[in-house]
Amino acid sequence: MHTLTVDALNPAFLNVQYAVRGELAIRAEEYRVQLKTAGDNHGLPFNRVISSNIGNPQQTGLDQPPITFVRQVAALMEWPVLAELAKDVFPADVIARAKELQAEIGSVGAYSHSQGVPFIRNNVANFIQERDGYPSNPNHIFLTAGASAGVTLLISMLISNPRSGILIPIPQYPLYTATLAANSGVGIPYHLDEDAEWATSAPDIEAAIEGAVREGITPKALVVINPGNPTGALLDEATMQNVVRLCERYGLVLLADEVYQTNLHSRSTHPFTSFKKVVRALGSSLPLVSFHSISKGVMGECGRRGGYFECTNISDDIIALIYKLVSVLLCPPLSGQIGVDCMVRPPRQGDASYALWKQETDTTHAALAQRTKTMSARLNELPGVSCVDSPGALYLYPRIRLPDAAIEAARKAGKEPDTFYALGLLEDTGICVIPGSGFGQKEGQYHYRLTCLCPGVDEYVGALERFHRKFVERYGGL
Amino acid sequence: MHTLTVDALNPAFLNVQYAVRGELAIRAEEYRVQLKTAGDNHGLPFNRVISSNIGNPQQTGLDQPPITFVRQVAALMEWPVLAELAKDVFPADVIARAKELQAEIGSVGAYSHSQGVPFIRNNVANFIQERDGYPSNPNHIFLTAGASAGVTLLISMLISNPRSGILIPIPQYPLYTATLAANSGVGIPYHLDEDAEWATSAPDIEAAIEGAVREGITPKALVVINPGNPTGALLDEATMQNVVRLCERYGLVLLADEVYQTNLHSRSTHPFTSFKKVVRALGSSLPLVSFHSISKGVMGECGRRGGYFECTNISDDIIALIYKLVSVLLCPPLSGQIGVDCMVRPPRQGDASYALWKQETDTTHAALAQRTKTMSARLNELPGVSCVDSPGALYLYPRIRLPDAAIEAARKAGKEPDTFYALGLLEDTGICVIPGSGFGQKEGQYHYRLTCLCPGVDEYVGALERFHRKFVERYGGL
Repeated sequence: MHTLTVDALNPAFLNVQYAVRGELAIRAEEYRVQLKTAGDNHGLPFNRVISSNIGNPQQTGLDQPPITFVRQVAALMEWPVLAELAKDVFPADVIARAKELQAEIGSVGAYSHSQGVPFIRNNVANFIQERDGYPSNPNHIFLTAGASAGVTLLISMLISNPRSGILIPIPQYPLYTATLAANSGVGIPYHLDEDAEWATSAPDIEAAIEGAVREGITPKALVVINPGNPTGALLDEATMQNVVRLCERYGLVLLADEVYQTNLHSRSTHPFTSFKKVVRALGSSLPLVSFHSISKGVMGECGRRGGYFECTNISDDIIALIYKLVSVLLCPPLSGQIGVDCMVRPPRQGDASYALWKQETDTTHAALAQRTKTMSARLNELPGVSCVDSPGALYLYPRIRLPDAAIEAARKAGKEPDTFYALGLLEDTGICVIPGSGFGQKEGQYHYRLTCLCPGVDEYVGALERFHRKFVERYGGL
Repeated sequence: MHTLTVDALNPAFLNVQYAVRGELAIRAEEYRVQLKTAGDNHGLPFNRVISSNIGNPQQTGLDQPPITFVRQVAALMEWPVLAELAKDVFPADVIARAKELQAEIGSVGAYSHSQGVPFIRNNVANFIQERDGYPSNPNHIFLTAGASAGVTLLISMLISNPRSGILIPIPQYPLYTATLAANSGVGIPYHLDEDAEWATSAPDIEAAIEGAVREGITPKALVVINPGNPTGALLDEATMQNVVRLCERYGLVLLADEVYQTNLHSRSTHPFTSFKKVVRALGSSLPLVSFHSISKGVMGECGRRGGYFECTNISDDIIALIYKLVSVLLCPPLSGQIGVDCMVRPPRQGDASYALWKQETDTTHAALAQRTKTMSARLNELPGVSCVDSPGALYLYPRIRLPDAAIEAARKAGKEPDTFYALGLLEDTGICVIPGSGFGQKEGQYHYRLTCLCPGVDEYVGALERFHRKFVERYGGL
């Protein structure tokens, strides 16, 4: 009998780890099925699973409402005759927008240009120019199936041999380590400073580069996540300038993950500046690829799979190579491309949809900022917990000190201590968070990441608090 | 100044070739822009570009109409309140279907299960069971962003080192050679027999395997495209059984690309049988992965990016590995997943939408079959052209004999002779076809692939005929 075994497969794939959908998420899914199928006799100490493991605002249970404008445009793109059959139902600007897009795209059932619909790329370029004050070239923009698709493409392109390294922040979003593992590249970690609001330090990055070089690794690129994931931190312009100069000095490509650029809870003290703007302001020739997405912000349109990356100071022959690579998979989903267009061209004052759009986006922004503040304040009151009050993105990344007996119990169970804690939290409360070991942390430290998306914040944080106090007590206190 | 150069990048990517969106398609796109921007003074000998290079039925100019049922369901999924606001506009079964999907999926703006919505996978399993008469396990099904995403994943998983080989038919769909190149795997070609309607021969495959082994290549898998692309050929069951036995004997995984399974023009003489059915009927333990898509058939919903693959005789630890890999990119687009659900659960007799669905699908099937027959008959009348009357898929792959002077002129221009011919056709008529060198052919033979999707078949074939006669004459005849 002939069977296929794992050891016959690409060995690099065996090293891929992606904690956001790993052990905790799989267990949570099992509980969800149990709750659904067993009815009242489920025997669990909770009645619903809260998936705080992933920034997925519109999922059932979180139910962040979609922006009506986006969905109205998308519905008309699906079935254009609706504009006639139900014309009183749609605002005038929505109908006009859908007609304009239809004229450019044709059917959403057709493959588009592999790089994305030219008209939409043009709109993205205008959005970037308006944001930064510097021109943007639509031919240097690639629409993608979410930012992740762009990141994996760029990393797989930059890893030219198994000694190629890419600098990644610690803690990081595990897409980066997973993609490096899949492509047999080396992750070169640089640590963010938790005591300084998870600040990025150019000297620390430089030390990491020097260390890697001493080990025979060739650093090819530097990843910066700004606003940070899982930290929510924002880089100030002086730090960004230092990072750009450092990349120039070491011949690194800068990969700027800026998908949370509109999730800002303290705009006056912690504004967002794009790396594109900093590179242009410095007159730098640094090769830069900047990623954005429709999955975050207040759209939260994860399921459409839409995003883009912009190439700055990347030569035409490399642009042509990227085009060739993306053409093999034909095109990004049209639903995502339309989402990108709605993101970069929201209703303007005077448009019929503007008032509703403003109300919806303001409400979601305010709720997220409020929840983040409440949650971090209350988590900081707990014994052994310290939590940076995140000024951006969708997450908190509290640090937890654990009783020695808990660490011992975890080791006995063959788990990392923070995984052991997170599994306990899930079993007790139905809340699924991701242990810090999935994002990276200093030796002997423990964290977890949770989203600030849950609507009933009191109940949510209340459950976290009760579990934490009980856990600390069960293992003999701190 | 620091610049990024191509030679610093993944060297495997430089070898990727994808003719379907290559030189011809890029030139065609330039003509399209020229026609659009220059108005009446475009100076070209044609007024529109006909993109016969790619199976993209709904693209502008081809305009195969989408199936109304699919788009109505999709529109309601985008903006569910439409079911109330415009209830007279939607048939009852569409409203019921959308409500059912909403209850299972929640918002289409949320990430789904990384493997695809469980409810939709369950519907796919029922569809497969109904088609084949053998059970299908929804946990062994992965929804994908088109079949291509699944194929690239499987190939990248099966290539475990640079001596790993995968058998591919010649001619082939260039996704396979492109993905092999990107993953530093070796393509092991086996030739289809043009004189026997592009038949697949197990002995020829065996000879290719033996030859590869002698060169130190380890064959890992065999790709079969059925119905064929670009050939349109269908495998009979006896051949399929031989192929299964051969894969068993050599320990190969069988990758069955069955995306054209409903594009059948001669069902009585050339029916479709799935490899899943053959493997089960033989009681074989052969590892098999079967691919399907919503981009082809009569849906032609390419832009949604939807498809699935089913794993047969693949162990649970490998399923878990695949799950881990797909989870890094979070989930396939919901628009594609909804398309898959509509494909596997079309309206049934008695449903309000059934009559329209039947009429639309029958019309598209008939038009495609008719065009294929007309085109192959007329192409066969041309001097030096022979063309198998394709019983399936969306293409013809005529063989062309070229005058010696034309071959000489091509060499002087630094082009393959069939590329030279196809460029001439594009320049003269605006029709974009893909030369056989992009799909593979025997040394000294020339072909091109064109789609049978163009609505005005007389005008279309007329232009092909005029160009061919003129070309042959210009280069001194045959």
